[in-house]
Amino acid sequence: MTEAVEYDVVVLGGGPAGENVVDRTRAAGLSTALVEAELIGGECSYWACVPSKALLRPALARADARRVPGLAPAVQGRLDAPAVLAHRDWWTGHWKDDGQVDWLASIGAHVYRGHGRLYGEKKITVTSPEGDHHVLVARHAVVLATGSRAVLPDLPGVPAARPWTSREATSSQHVPGRLAIVGGSVVAVEMATAWQALGARVTLLVRGPQLLPRMEPFAGELVADGLREAGVAIRTGVTVEALVRDGSTGPVTVVLQGGEMIGADEVLFATGRAPRTEDIGLDTVGLAPAAWLPVDESCRVDGTDWLYAVGDANHRALMTHQGKYQARIAGAAIAARAAGTAPDTTPWGAHAATADHAARPQVVFTDPEAASVGLTLAEAERAGHRARAVDHDLGAVTGAGLYAHGYRGKARMVVDLDREVVLGATFVGPGTGELLHSATVAVAGEVPLARLWHAVPAFPTVSEVWLRLLEAYRDGSG
Amino acid sequence: MTEAVEYDVVVLGGGPAGENVVDRTRAAGLSTALVEAELIGGECSYWACVPSKALLRPALARADARRVPGLAPAVQGRLDAPAVLAHRDWWTGHWKDDGQVDWLASIGAHVYRGHGRLYGEKKITVTSPEGDHHVLVARHAVVLATGSRAVLPDLPGVPAARPWTSREATSSQHVPGRLAIVGGSVVAVEMATAWQALGARVTLLVRGPQLLPRMEPFAGELVADGLREAGVAIRTGVTVEALVRDGSTGPVTVVLQGGEMIGADEVLFATGRAPRTEDIGLDTVGLAPAAWLPVDESCRVDGTDWLYAVGDANHRALMTHQGKYQARIAGAAIAARAAGTAPDTTPWGAHAATADHAARPQVVFTDPEAASVGLTLAEAERAGHRARAVDHDLGAVTGAGLYAHGYRGKARMVVDLDREVVLGATFVGPGTGELLHSATVAVAGEVPLARLWHAVPAFPTVSEVWLRLLEAYRDGSG
Repeated sequence: MTEAVEYDVVVLGGGPAGENVVDRTRAAGLSTALVEAELIGGECSYWACVPSKALLRPALARADARRVPGLAPAVQGRLDAPAVLAHRDWWTGHWKDDGQVDWLASIGAHVYRGHGRLYGEKKITVTSPEGDHHVLVARHAVVLATGSRAVLPDLPGVPAARPWTSREATSSQHVPGRLAIVGGSVVAVEMATAWQALGARVTLLVRGPQLLPRMEPFAGELVADGLREAGVAIRTGVTVEALVRDGSTGPVTVVLQGGEMIGADEVLFATGRAPRTEDIGLDTVGLAPAAWLPVDESCRVDGTDWLYAVGDANHRALMTHQGKYQARIAGAAIAARAAGTAPDTTPWGAHAATADHAARPQVVFTDPEAASVGLTLAEAERAGHRARAVDHDLGAVTGAGLYAHGYRGKARMVVDLDREVVLGATFVGPGTGELLHSATVAVAGEVPLARLWHAVPAFPTVSEVWLRLLEAYRDGSG
Repeated sequence: MTEAVEYDVVVLGGGPAGENVVDRTRAAGLSTALVEAELIGGECSYWACVPSKALLRPALARADARRVPGLAPAVQGRLDAPAVLAHRDWWTGHWKDDGQVDWLASIGAHVYRGHGRLYGEKKITVTSPEGDHHVLVARHAVVLATGSRAVLPDLPGVPAARPWTSREATSSQHVPGRLAIVGGSVVAVEMATAWQALGARVTLLVRGPQLLPRMEPFAGELVADGLREAGVAIRTGVTVEALVRDGSTGPVTVVLQGGEMIGADEVLFATGRAPRTEDIGLDTVGLAPAAWLPVDESCRVDGTDWLYAVGDANHRALMTHQGKYQARIAGAAIAARAAGTAPDTTPWGAHAATADHAARPQVVFTDPEAASVGLTLAEAERAGHRARAVDHDLGAVTGAGLYAHGYRGKARMVVDLDREVVLGATFVGPGTGELLHSATVAVAGEVPLARLWHAVPAFPTVSEVWLRLLEAYRDGSG
C-alpha cells in the first residue's frame, strides 16, 4: 500500500454516468478521481447503445427506403454486412478508449486504472491490472457508477455453450447463420432486428405473452408484426430449459420446456441485468453486496451522507441518458453540499432526478421504432392518477403517410384529468425516435393541454399526430 | 337571383383553413356554408404541401440511405421518376376532391360550388360555374379563407413563355431536362431538391445573397451546400430581366441583368405570393380589394365585428398548419361571440392566435432538412428582447452521427435572458423535421430552461442536441 491520496470526490466506474459526475464536480472546482477497471466510456460506448445503434441504423434506413415509391426496388437486397460491422467497429473506436482518456485529462480529472473497492467510509483501494495498489480518500463524496451486467440463467449447458449476452451481440465479428434470442425486451428486439437484417435467421424465444412488456401493449404488438415481416420467428410463452453445444464451435441446441428443440448457431440471452456491486467493498460500510443501491432524489445512497450511486447501479432507470441525467444532478448536489449550500431536492429541483420516475424517455430502434416517455396508462393508474388515454392511428396522419407509404403505427397520450397535463406518451412507427422529445418536453415541462393547442405541428410531418391526440381528448374520442 | 339562404356562418374558400372553420363552427352547433370555386382541399392538398412532400420524400429517403454504410451502394442511382410522379398523383387524389366533399357532408356543412363575393355586410353572392346564382346571408360571421396565389413578375416575355409557378412545379407530369428556378425561398429550394433528384438539371437564380433569408443564416448556407452536392447550380445576386420561349413548346432562354442568357426547358418563378382578395367584393364593405386583410388576434378583420380572415389571406403566417390553427381559433371565437360569451384573446388564450408570431414552426424538406420555430436571433433583438443565441454542431452529436455517417448540420437556440425561456430554435440537418416539435412545445409552452434540463433526450438520438444547447447556454459557450 502506498500513502493515501486525497480528492474531494472519488468516482467508481467510468461509464457515461461516472464520466458525467466527474465533469460536473470538476466544473464546480472540486478535485475528482475516477477509477475504472475496463474501458473508460463504459458499456454504452462499447457493448450497448453505440454499437447496437450502429448495427441497427442501416436496417432502419433500408426499411424507410423500402417504403418510398421510386426508391424501393433499389433496396430489396441484403445489407452489406461486412461494411456494417466495420462501421460498428469504427464507432466503438475499435474498443479503445484513448479519446475518453484524453477528455478526462483535459478537464483535470485523475484516472486510476484498476479495480476499486471501498474499505470504510470515504476510503477506496484501487488494484491495478499490474497488481499495484493505491489508496484514495474522498473528502466529500464517493460515487458508485459501476453499472450492471447481463445475467445468464442458471440452466444446464449454459456455461459450456458460451451463449451471447448483450456484449457479444453488439461486438460479434461474424453473422451467425441462425441466432436464437431468449427474451422479449429492448435488447432482444433490437438485436433481432439488427442480426436478421444482417443475414441471420433469428428466432425470438419469449417467456411471456408479449414483447416490450414495460411499454403500452400496442408497442410490443407492432414491433412483433415488424419482426415477423422481416422474417424473424417469434415464439411466445416458451421457457428455455437447457442448452447443448455440439463441440466447441458447432451448433447449439436450445431445449424448451416440453422437450422441443431449436437449432441455432448462436444463442443470445437478453433476460435481465444485475448490479456490478458484488466486489466493491459495500460490506465495509454496512451495505449489502451484490444488491442494487437504493438512493434518494439526489442519488445519495439511503442511510449515508457521503455515498452516491448513479446509473444502472441505483436501478432507477437502466438507460444511458438517465444515468447521465442522474450524474448531472448528483454532481451538482455534491458540489452544493461541499459548499455548505442546501440542495434543492423538491420535485423538478436542480438536485432532484424527478424525470427518472415522471419523464423517462426510451426509444427502441426497431422497425417500427417504439418510443415512450413518462407513464403508461397502467402506470398512471397504479400511481393513483385519475388518468385517461387517447389513441390515434399514426397511419392516418398525412405527414406519416407521406413519410412512408403504407405507414403503420400508433400513438397514445396519457392525460392527468385533474391537472390536464400529459403524464406519458407512446409513439410506435417509423421515424418516431426524434418525435419523442416533443412529448418529453411536454411531460417534464408539465405544459397544460390548453397551451399544447398553441404548439402547432408543422404540416406535413408525423408530429401532426399531436393535433389528432388533442382533438381526440377534446372530443372524447380515440 | 334566388331567395337568400341564411346560415350562422359563411366561409369563402375551402382550403384547410376554411375547412377547419367549418369544422369548428359546426362542432359548436352553428349552421355553416362553404363556398369554393375550385377543388375543396385547397392549394395545400393539390398544388403545395401534399404533392411537394410526395415528390420530396423519395429524395430525402435516398439521401438518408446514401449516408448509411452497408446500404449506400444500392441507392446511388436515379429515382424512378414515373413511380414518384404516379405516387404524387395518388396523394392528390388525381386532383379530385370527392373525399373532402364527403367529409363536409358528414359534418352537416352546406357546400356551394362557385365564386363567392360579398355584397354588403354579412351578405354573399355565389356564381356557380354553370352561371347559377345563390344569395347567402350570415347571421354571425363571414370568414374569408381565399388563400394566396403565386405572383409572376411583370417582365418581357413572361406570359408568352408560360413559366411554372408552384402549381405546375408540384403537378407536372414530366421531368424537364433543364429547370431554371427563380427565387431562393422555401418553394424554390424544395422544388430544386425534388426535380434535381427526379433527373432535371436545376439552376437556381437568386436575387439576394443567400437562400432561405427568413431563417437563421446558417440554414440557407447548409441547404445551399446540399443542393450543390446534389448537382444544382446556384447563382446568387442575379436578376431576371426577360424570358424568351422558342415557339410554343421549345426551350426557354432566361435573360439576366447584364445580358447573360441561361437555357432551360422550363422556368419556375417562386418569387412571392399575392392575396386572392381582388374579386370577393371587399369594396362593398369598405375594404380595399386585392390587399392582405389585417386581423386581430382572434382573426377578426380590423374595423369589423362580423368579418374574419384566416389562412394566407390575413398574411400572418403563410403556412397550412398556421392557417388551420387560425381557423380553430377563429371558429372558437365566432362560436363564443355567437353565444354571447366574451372570447379569451389574452396571449395564448383560447381565442388568440399567439403562436402566429411567437411559435410558428416551419420545416423545409430539403437535404438537409431545415426546421425552425419562433424567433430568430435577429427577430428577437428587433422585438426588443434581451436575447442570446447558442449554437451547436449537429455533426458532433452521437445520435446524429449514428443516424447518418458524416452528418452535417447545426442547431441554434435563442434564449430570452430575462425570463430564461426559449424564444426560438433552428435545426438544420437530416431527420430534424420531426425533432422540431420538441422546440415548438418548449417555445409555445414557455418552459423555463431550468425545467428543460429535466427533459432528457433519449440516447442516441439527434435530439441529444438539446442537452448540448443547454450546456452551451450554461457554460457561456456555443
